[in-house]
Amino acid sequence: MIEIYHCLEINAPLKKVYWAVTEKEGLSAWWTKSLDADNKAGSVSTFRFKSGAFNKMKIINISPDKIEWECIDGHSEWVGTQITFELRKYRERTIVCFSHYNWKTQSEYTGECSFHWAQYLVSLKKLCETGSGMPDEGVK
Amino acid sequence: MIEIYHCLEINAPLKKVYWAVTEKEGLSAWWTKSLDADNKAGSVSTFRFKSGAFNKMKIINISPDKIEWECIDGHSEWVGTQITFELRKYRERTIVCFSHYNWKTQSEYTGECSFHWAQYLVSLKKLCETGSGMPDEGVK
Repeated sequence: MIEIYHCLEINAPLKKVYWAVTEKEGLSAWWTKSLDADNKAGSVSTFRFKSGAFNKMKIINISPDKIEWECIDGHSEWVGTQITFELRKYRERTIVCFSHYNWKTQSEYTGECSFHWAQYLVSLKKLCETGSGMPDEGVK
Repeated sequence: MIEIYHCLEINAPLKKVYWAVTEKEGLSAWWTKSLDADNKAGSVSTFRFKSGAFNKMKIINISPDKIEWECIDGHSEWVGTQITFELRKYRERTIVCFSHYNWKTQSEYTGECSFHWAQYLVSLKKLCETGSGMPDEGVK
């Protein structure tokens, strides 16, 4: 299976990280400011990017330790892929394991997505640790 | 196959990126300052980190479009893994595809390595584009 898989430690409580990956206010502060996001299983969130790209994510699962999306519209290589955020409490901190999987083929494009996701996860980490992320930036 | 795979564009000529991933001076300016590196096929380079970790990389292949290492000593999960840097000229810039593969199992540890490699690749990019990288830093 072709999978992008990143893990990182965030020096913030799980509740804060959960907010950042489930609530519109949180997602807009580290990923993209232009979005319509809901936080209920079965609902669809839309994320738009400055490049003109967009994607629609159906929320498959939303629980405090695992958030799971399926891409149902957007870039052709993204449609049918799935994303999970797994959250685990570690002392007063949170371990986040992020997966973007079910890609049809590996390519330079999936390699770019892997690189850019890591930069967005830095943005998520900064948001949770300092209150300020860097949405809409693929590379710092 | 379990593989970390990142691609990025660097706004610098291929020759500069090649220098950064093959010469001791280059490697020490974006990955780790403490190293003994050679640049001939069959030679072994040693990279040491502030955490006390180290790894020894045997140079399997070294050509302008592909550099290939095999880890022959160091962290037990790294031994037997291989790393490639594939370089491609794109206009006046360079596309770098980095792969770290042949892992025995996927785990939180490989996820952390994926995340940290992406930050070191940001360091490589900054070194090539501005003359100044951020060696010895896993996360900015």
